[in-house]
Amino acid sequence: MRFSDFMYIDHPASYTDYYELTMAQGYFLAGMHEKRSTFDYFFRKVPFDGGYVVFAGLKELIETIKHLIFSEEEIEYLVKEGFSDEFIQYLRNFEFKGNIWSAREGELIFPNEPVLRVEGNLLETQLIETLLLNILNFQSLIATKASRIKYAAGENSTVLDFGLRRAQGLGGIHATRAAMIGGFDGTSNVYSAQRFSIPAGGTMAHSWIQSFDDELTAFKTYCDHYPNSSHLLVDTYDTLGSGVPNAIKMATELRRNGHELKGIRLDSGDLAYFSRQARQMLDNAGFPDVKIAASNQLDERVIASLRNQGAPIDIFGVGTRLVTGDNSPALDGVYKLSSVGGNPTMKISENIEKITLPGIKKIYRYLNDDKTFYGDAILMEEETHPERMHHPTFPAKKSRLNGMDFEELLIPVIRNGKVIFEMPEVKRIVEYKNERFSRLHSEYKRFDNPHIYKIGISTRLMETRDHLLTELKNG
Amino acid sequence: MRFSDFMYIDHPASYTDYYELTMAQGYFLAGMHEKRSTFDYFFRKVPFDGGYVVFAGLKELIETIKHLIFSEEEIEYLVKEGFSDEFIQYLRNFEFKGNIWSAREGELIFPNEPVLRVEGNLLETQLIETLLLNILNFQSLIATKASRIKYAAGENSTVLDFGLRRAQGLGGIHATRAAMIGGFDGTSNVYSAQRFSIPAGGTMAHSWIQSFDDELTAFKTYCDHYPNSSHLLVDTYDTLGSGVPNAIKMATELRRNGHELKGIRLDSGDLAYFSRQARQMLDNAGFPDVKIAASNQLDERVIASLRNQGAPIDIFGVGTRLVTGDNSPALDGVYKLSSVGGNPTMKISENIEKITLPGIKKIYRYLNDDKTFYGDAILMEEETHPERMHHPTFPAKKSRLNGMDFEELLIPVIRNGKVIFEMPEVKRIVEYKNERFSRLHSEYKRFDNPHIYKIGISTRLMETRDHLLTELKNG
Repeated sequence: MRFSDFMYIDHPASYTDYYELTMAQGYFLAGMHEKRSTFDYFFRKVPFDGGYVVFAGLKELIETIKHLIFSEEEIEYLVKEGFSDEFIQYLRNFEFKGNIWSAREGELIFPNEPVLRVEGNLLETQLIETLLLNILNFQSLIATKASRIKYAAGENSTVLDFGLRRAQGLGGIHATRAAMIGGFDGTSNVYSAQRFSIPAGGTMAHSWIQSFDDELTAFKTYCDHYPNSSHLLVDTYDTLGSGVPNAIKMATELRRNGHELKGIRLDSGDLAYFSRQARQMLDNAGFPDVKIAASNQLDERVIASLRNQGAPIDIFGVGTRLVTGDNSPALDGVYKLSSVGGNPTMKISENIEKITLPGIKKIYRYLNDDKTFYGDAILMEEETHPERMHHPTFPAKKSRLNGMDFEELLIPVIRNGKVIFEMPEVKRIVEYKNERFSRLHSEYKRFDNPHIYKIGISTRLMETRDHLLTELKNG
Repeated sequence: MRFSDFMYIDHPASYTDYYELTMAQGYFLAGMHEKRSTFDYFFRKVPFDGGYVVFAGLKELIETIKHLIFSEEEIEYLVKEGFSDEFIQYLRNFEFKGNIWSAREGELIFPNEPVLRVEGNLLETQLIETLLLNILNFQSLIATKASRIKYAAGENSTVLDFGLRRAQGLGGIHATRAAMIGGFDGTSNVYSAQRFSIPAGGTMAHSWIQSFDDELTAFKTYCDHYPNSSHLLVDTYDTLGSGVPNAIKMATELRRNGHELKGIRLDSGDLAYFSRQARQMLDNAGFPDVKIAASNQLDERVIASLRNQGAPIDIFGVGTRLVTGDNSPALDGVYKLSSVGGNPTMKISENIEKITLPGIKKIYRYLNDDKTFYGDAILMEEETHPERMHHPTFPAKKSRLNGMDFEELLIPVIRNGKVIFEMPEVKRIVEYKNERFSRLHSEYKRFDNPHIYKIGISTRLMETRDHLLTELKNG
């Protein structure tokens, strides 16, 4: 395979906002570019009005950073744009030499906690901002949506990504990868299936049926060529009047020849009603194992409603609302400077919730006695056992942490520019996600008014922030 | 430039849904693949509850189809997946040899009209479905959103795409191209700027300000290096208390040295209030030409509201809500078989609005006396001067067309696999879009309850459809 597995795009250095380059040149010309700096990646609002986010995209991020060089084309462009000779000379030899700590892909993450931390010189840490946000925001968004859909469908159902035709252009490539991390079982997207070793499949289009003089001939021709893997689309003319009866005729003929029809697909009309009728017709004809697949504008709420109505659907094909994130088409992840030249720094804002947390920080995830997740504390890198954590904006609200078990959430993935963590395959990431998901109480998973996961800051971090805030307000 | 200008991705043949391949093999093995077929591309619902769509993506589509071959990697994959030897042999020599008629990029298009028509053999016309939908749906969506935003901002404002960090992964690449077609003036996205020859630019991040001991030094250092192109970000600490006063200090110093400050940027707080105050402070200090840029969750409605409040903002930086389409993150374009083996075909559906129009069709755009758009008629290819057009689902509602001027909307772009239409550059496409836009009455452009553009079908098309519908219902 010549697939460019490790590259997000062919020219990652230009996959950036223009101001990253003007700022980088500014730091360089002012002789500040070697200043030691730290940036945090975090998001502020859980999309879909949900209770959690599934972290995804780390592998592409790391591999893109690893291959981040300025090629001749980019250099030429920068020359034409008037960047200075010395700076361009610097970029010719540019390599990211910093450190990255991160949560694992598949981790459950929550608002305002710095789930990824970049340390290095000011220039290199600034330069990767845009691509980092682009990659992590999108994959985490879709992994989260996928997780919600899989949760609604239930462990015993199959959920398939059918979204490529409605995906946001090339966004479809990584939407599929992220959907798998979130818990999807397969995809129709051949490109991503090849690239990320994902099972691919599909049924047939209405055009297939229309290409034949009649529906039964269309079914028959398909089954002739795919006797062991046919899913027949039954809604082209009349679902219960012709589609399902013709599918049963085919199932009978296949069985006579030693094969079994795999399934049927409903793509319009009332899926609850049609699936119940179709199930009964198939069962009565002796085909209880023929699966019923459904598609057509599905999402977690429609699927939950179908489940509640007892619709006997085995396979859900989900497209548009999975791969675009539907009504929450972006995760609002940001990348904020938290330390420069050894000093903690923060951004004040007109909006309180946009004030950032200063300094080099880490995250402890505290566990209940049964190992389920209790809450996360954000603390200073050098801290060990904080006694308590405080609500970030309402410090009187606090929780005692003494004696509780915890896990450290961030692990080192790049040190001095070298990747030191072996990125697991999608399959392994899903296992990790499933294990973590099983340790999150269901109150955080429901779709309406989910319980808000506890995120606190240590006393020391709070004091650092408040001290710095006073200083900045006064100076 | 080694940029792969002409390729949508490196392996377009696998950028498809799996069922396109199983159906293609089915047609091939059944000896049906050479049947002459026609597919229509159209959408059903205008996104954003708007009144029109800006058609975009044709250039990438045509160039992708031109380069659609099955490489060794794809062949290997298909072998592993169990596709048959004969079919794989056929794919090794596959080239698209069909015809494509299409509306021009930048054209204003409306629901249910077939704005692109593909003719060829059944296999090749089927095979390109997914990539065609992926490309056209997304670029048309974003071009439309961009057009709305530009319309709200007004001709005298500058609108810039700042969306890459929140774009749906690699979708950001073509989002920027589409935004330009829709009327944007520039982008922060360096990759797309290089690839599509778009002006790139930007201001500075909060991290720039934070990297210095104080705001004024941060401003000064930036202006030292960019004395003629600085836009200073003024909201890091206190917009009116320090940001704007420090910007005025810099403007004064720059002028003393023969330069002029270009602008300031507001990124939080009440943009209407801050822009008015900042404008007054700048004007009073003798800097009426320093531009005010604003960003922070902007879209056409926020911008229209700022305009209504008289906010003196010159430049709008729009990110997330532009490049994702916000609350309408997908255009619902579909690709439907309309003729096979010389016979018109259609899809019946449980939902009336999903019934398709049969046969090989074209579109006439009728013009009012002042050359503004009156409405579009869909008619059979061989028709010339239909006397009237009918509402597609309520035929008693009809319009007389005799004697009206019209333009034919579809032009041939590929004939027998050869591209016969020279694809214009983005710059030319924008000119075309602007000319068309000037001929659409403002009632169709408003954001709330826009007037519904008239789309009708010719009497002959209506009769063909109704005849076929009866036949299918009976058979």
